[in-house]
Amino acid sequence: MADWVHMTEGVRRRILNDGEKLMLVQVEFAAAGNAVPAHHHVNEQISYVTMGKMRFTVDGREVIVSAGESLHVPANVVHDATALEPSTVLDMFSPPRDDFRPKA
Amino acid sequence: MADWVHMTEGVRRRILNDGEKLMLVQVEFAAAGNAVPAHHHVNEQISYVTMGKMRFTVDGREVIVSAGESLHVPANVVHDATALEPSTVLDMFSPPRDDFRPKA
Repeated sequence: MADWVHMTEGVRRRILNDGEKLMLVQVEFAAAGNAVPAHHHVNEQISYVTMGKMRFTVDGREVIVSAGESLHVPANVVHDATALEPSTVLDMFSPPRDDFRPKA
Repeated sequence: MADWVHMTEGVRRRILNDGEKLMLVQVEFAAAGNAVPAHHHVNEQISYVTMGKMRFTVDGREVIVSAGESLHVPANVVHDATALEPSTVLDMFSPPRDDFRPKA
Protein backbone atom coordinates (compact mmCIF):
# COMPACT_ATOMS: atom_id res chain seq x y z
CA MET A 1 0.00 0.00 0.00
CA ALA A 2 1.29 3.44 -0.90
CA ASP A 3 2.47 5.96 1.67
CA TRP A 4 0.31 8.75 3.01
CA VAL A 5 0.65 11.98 1.03
CA HIS A 6 -0.11 15.37 2.55
CA MET A 7 -2.75 17.27 0.55
CA THR A 8 -3.83 20.35 2.54
CA GLU A 9 -3.93 21.25 6.24
CA GLY A 10 -5.30 18.20 8.09
CA VAL A 11 -5.92 16.28 4.85
CA ARG A 12 -3.90 13.32 3.63
CA ARG A 13 -4.41 10.55 1.07
CA ARG A 14 -3.04 7.15 0.20
CA ILE A 15 -3.60 4.84 -2.74
CA LEU A 16 -5.26 1.59 -1.64
CA ASN A 17 -5.43 -0.10 -5.06
CA ASP A 18 -4.15 0.95 -8.46
CA GLY A 19 -5.21 -0.80 -11.64
CA GLU A 20 -5.55 -0.24 -15.35
CA LYS A 21 -8.92 1.50 -15.36
CA LEU A 22 -9.60 1.89 -11.62
CA MET A 23 -7.84 3.51 -8.67
CA LEU A 24 -9.03 3.52 -5.04
CA VAL A 25 -7.73 6.27 -2.76
CA GLN A 26 -8.41 6.80 0.94
CA VAL A 27 -8.58 10.42 2.11
CA GLU A 28 -8.52 11.40 5.79
CA PHE A 29 -9.76 14.75 7.11
CA ALA A 30 -8.45 15.21 10.66
CA ALA A 31 -10.94 17.84 11.82
CA ALA A 32 -14.03 19.80 10.89
CA GLY A 33 -13.13 22.56 8.44
CA ASN A 34 -10.30 20.66 6.79
CA ALA A 35 -10.91 20.91 3.07
CA VAL A 36 -9.81 20.19 -0.48
CA PRO A 37 -10.39 23.38 -2.49
CA ALA A 38 -12.28 23.51 -5.77
CA HIS A 39 -10.60 21.61 -8.59
CA HIS A 40 -11.41 19.42 -11.57
CA HIS A 41 -9.84 16.57 -13.50
CA VAL A 42 -10.56 14.38 -16.48
CA ASN A 43 -10.95 11.39 -14.15
CA GLU A 44 -14.51 10.41 -13.30
CA GLN A 45 -14.91 10.07 -9.51
CA ILE A 46 -17.16 8.45 -6.93
CA SER A 47 -16.64 9.40 -3.27
CA TYR A 48 -17.94 7.14 -0.47
CA VAL A 49 -17.79 8.44 3.11
CA THR A 50 -16.75 5.63 5.49
CA MET A 51 -16.60 7.81 8.63
CA GLY A 52 -17.79 11.29 9.56
CA LYS A 53 -19.72 13.81 7.51
CA MET A 54 -18.66 15.82 4.47
CA ARG A 55 -19.95 18.77 2.50
CA PHE A 56 -19.15 18.59 -1.18
CA THR A 57 -19.82 21.22 -3.79
CA VAL A 58 -20.24 19.74 -7.27
CA ASP A 59 -20.75 22.13 -10.16
CA GLY A 60 -21.98 24.76 -7.69
CA ARG A 61 -24.42 22.46 -5.90
CA GLU A 62 -23.85 21.67 -2.20
CA VAL A 63 -24.34 18.09 -1.06
CA ILE A 64 -23.98 16.74 2.48
CA VAL A 65 -22.67 13.18 2.48
CA SER A 66 -22.71 11.21 5.75
CA ALA A 67 -21.00 7.93 6.58
CA GLY A 68 -22.41 5.17 4.38
CA GLU A 69 -23.40 7.56 1.59
CA SER A 70 -21.70 8.33 -1.70
CA LEU A 71 -21.50 10.93 -4.45
CA HIS A 72 -20.75 10.86 -8.17
CA VAL A 73 -18.54 13.52 -9.75
CA PRO A 74 -18.53 13.38 -13.57
CA ALA A 75 -15.31 13.99 -15.50
CA ASN A 76 -14.12 17.61 -15.72
CA VAL A 77 -16.71 18.93 -13.24
CA VAL A 78 -15.48 21.43 -10.63
CA HIS A 79 -15.86 20.16 -7.07
CA ASP A 80 -14.58 20.73 -3.55
CA ALA A 81 -14.82 18.84 -0.25
CA THR A 82 -15.03 20.12 3.33
CA ALA A 83 -15.15 17.96 6.46
CA LEU A 84 -18.01 18.79 8.85
CA GLU A 85 -16.40 16.47 11.44
CA PRO A 86 -13.33 14.20 11.39
CA SER A 87 -13.95 12.09 8.30
CA THR A 88 -12.58 9.38 6.06
CA VAL A 89 -13.53 9.14 2.41
CA LEU A 90 -12.94 6.55 -0.31
CA ASP A 91 -12.32 8.23 -3.64
CA MET A 92 -12.46 5.97 -6.68
CA PHE A 93 -11.33 7.18 -10.07
CA SER A 94 -11.48 6.07 -13.70
CA PRO A 95 -9.12 6.38 -15.35
CA PRO A 96 -6.64 6.19 -12.43
CA ARG A 97 -5.15 9.47 -11.16
CA ASP A 98 -1.77 9.23 -12.82
CA ASP A 99 -0.80 12.43 -10.98
CA PHE A 100 -1.26 10.54 -7.67
CA ARG A 101 1.18 7.77 -8.61
CA PRO A 102 4.59 7.90 -6.94
CA LYS A 103 7.20 9.24 -9.30
CA ALA A 104 9.88 6.73 -10.25
CA MET B 1 -30.60 4.67 -5.53
CA ALA B 2 -31.39 1.40 -7.23
CA ASP B 3 -33.36 -1.38 -5.57
CA TRP B 4 -31.78 -4.34 -3.88
CA VAL B 5 -31.30 -7.32 -6.17
CA HIS B 6 -31.09 -10.88 -4.87
CA MET B 7 -27.86 -12.60 -5.97
CA THR B 8 -27.52 -15.90 -4.10
CA GLU B 9 -28.75 -17.23 -0.75
CA GLY B 10 -28.23 -14.45 1.81
CA VAL B 11 -26.50 -12.18 -0.73
CA ARG B 12 -28.01 -9.05 -2.26
CA ARG B 13 -26.65 -6.03 -4.13
CA ARG B 14 -27.68 -2.51 -5.05
CA ILE B 15 -26.13 0.09 -7.31
CA LEU B 16 -25.06 3.16 -5.31
CA ASN B 17 -23.68 5.22 -8.21
CA ASP B 18 -23.60 4.59 -11.93
CA GLY B 19 -21.50 6.68 -14.28
CA GLU B 20 -19.81 6.54 -17.65
CA LYS B 21 -16.64 4.73 -16.63
CA LEU B 22 -17.37 3.90 -12.96
CA MET B 23 -20.05 1.99 -11.08
CA LEU B 24 -20.26 1.54 -7.30
CA VAL B 25 -22.26 -1.42 -5.97
CA GLN B 26 -22.96 -2.38 -2.36
CA VAL B 27 -23.15 -6.10 -1.63
CA GLU B 28 -24.54 -7.50 1.64
CA PHE B 29 -23.79 -11.00 2.92
CA ALA B 30 -26.29 -11.85 5.67
CA ALA B 31 -24.33 -14.64 7.34
CA ALA B 32 -21.07 -16.55 7.40
CA GLY B 33 -20.97 -18.99 4.50
CA ASN B 34 -23.04 -16.86 2.14
CA ALA B 35 -21.10 -16.68 -1.10
CA VAL B 36 -20.86 -15.54 -4.69
CA PRO B 37 -19.51 -18.49 -6.71
CA ALA B 38 -16.53 -18.28 -9.06
CA HIS B 39 -17.12 -16.04 -12.06
CA HIS B 40 -15.32 -13.53 -14.26
CA HIS B 41 -16.15 -10.45 -16.30
CA VAL B 42 -14.43 -7.96 -18.55
CA ASN B 43 -14.97 -5.26 -15.90
CA GLU B 44 -11.98 -4.47 -13.70
CA GLN B 45 -13.01 -4.57 -10.02
CA ILE B 46 -11.90 -3.32 -6.62
CA SER B 47 -13.70 -4.66 -3.54
CA TYR B 48 -13.57 -2.77 -0.22
CA VAL B 49 -15.00 -4.46 2.89
CA THR B 50 -16.90 -1.92 5.01
CA MET B 51 -18.12 -4.44 7.61
CA GLY B 52 -17.28 -8.01 8.52
CA LYS B 53 -14.69 -10.33 7.04
CA MET B 54 -14.54 -11.96 3.60
CA ARG B 55 -12.54 -14.70 1.92
CA PHE B 56 -11.93 -14.07 -1.76
CA THR B 57 -10.30 -16.41 -4.22
CA VAL B 58 -8.66 -14.54 -7.10
CA ASP B 59 -7.07 -16.59 -9.86
CA GLY B 60 -6.77 -19.53 -7.44
CA ARG B 61 -5.21 -17.48 -4.63
CA GLU B 62 -7.11 -17.11 -1.33
CA VAL B 63 -7.16 -13.70 0.32
CA ILE B 64 -8.82 -12.76 3.61
CA VAL B 65 -10.12 -9.19 3.54
CA SER B 66 -11.31 -7.61 6.80
CA ALA B 67 -13.29 -4.41 7.32
CA GLY B 68 -11.22 -1.46 6.11
CA GLU B 69 -9.24 -3.53 3.63
CA SER B 70 -9.59 -3.89 -0.12
CA LEU B 71 -8.73 -6.15 -3.03
CA HIS B 72 -8.05 -5.63 -6.74
CA VAL B 73 -9.48 -8.05 -9.32
CA PRO B 74 -8.10 -7.47 -12.83
CA ALA B 75 -10.37 -7.79 -15.85
CA ASN B 76 -11.32 -11.33 -16.91
CA VAL B 77 -9.79 -12.98 -13.82
CA VAL B 78 -11.84 -15.74 -12.15
CA HIS B 79 -12.82 -14.87 -8.57
CA ASP B 80 -15.29 -15.82 -5.85
CA ALA B 81 -16.31 -14.33 -2.50
CA THR B 82 -17.39 -16.01 0.75
CA ALA B 83 -18.46 -14.25 3.93
CA LEU B 84 -16.67 -15.41 7.08
CA GLU B 85 -19.15 -13.36 9.14
CA PRO B 86 -22.05 -11.03 8.25
CA SER B 87 -20.39 -8.60 5.85
CA THR B 88 -20.91 -5.62 3.59
CA VAL B 89 -18.69 -4.99 0.58
CA LEU B 90 -18.30 -2.09 -1.83
CA ASP B 91 -17.62 -3.36 -5.34
CA MET B 92 -16.43 -0.77 -7.83
CA PHE B 93 -16.22 -1.56 -11.52
CA SER B 94 -14.75 -0.05 -14.67
CA PRO B 95 -16.35 -0.12 -17.11
CA PRO B 96 -19.72 -0.20 -15.30
CA ARG B 97 -21.50 -3.58 -15.06
CA ASP B 98 -24.06 -3.06 -17.78
CA ASP B 99 -25.56 -6.43 -16.81
CA PHE B 100 -26.38 -4.95 -13.36
CA ARG B 101 -28.36 -2.03 -14.81
CA PRO B 102 -32.14 -2.27 -14.52
CA LYS B 103 -33.70 -3.24 -17.84
CA ALA B 104 -35.88 -0.53 -19.37
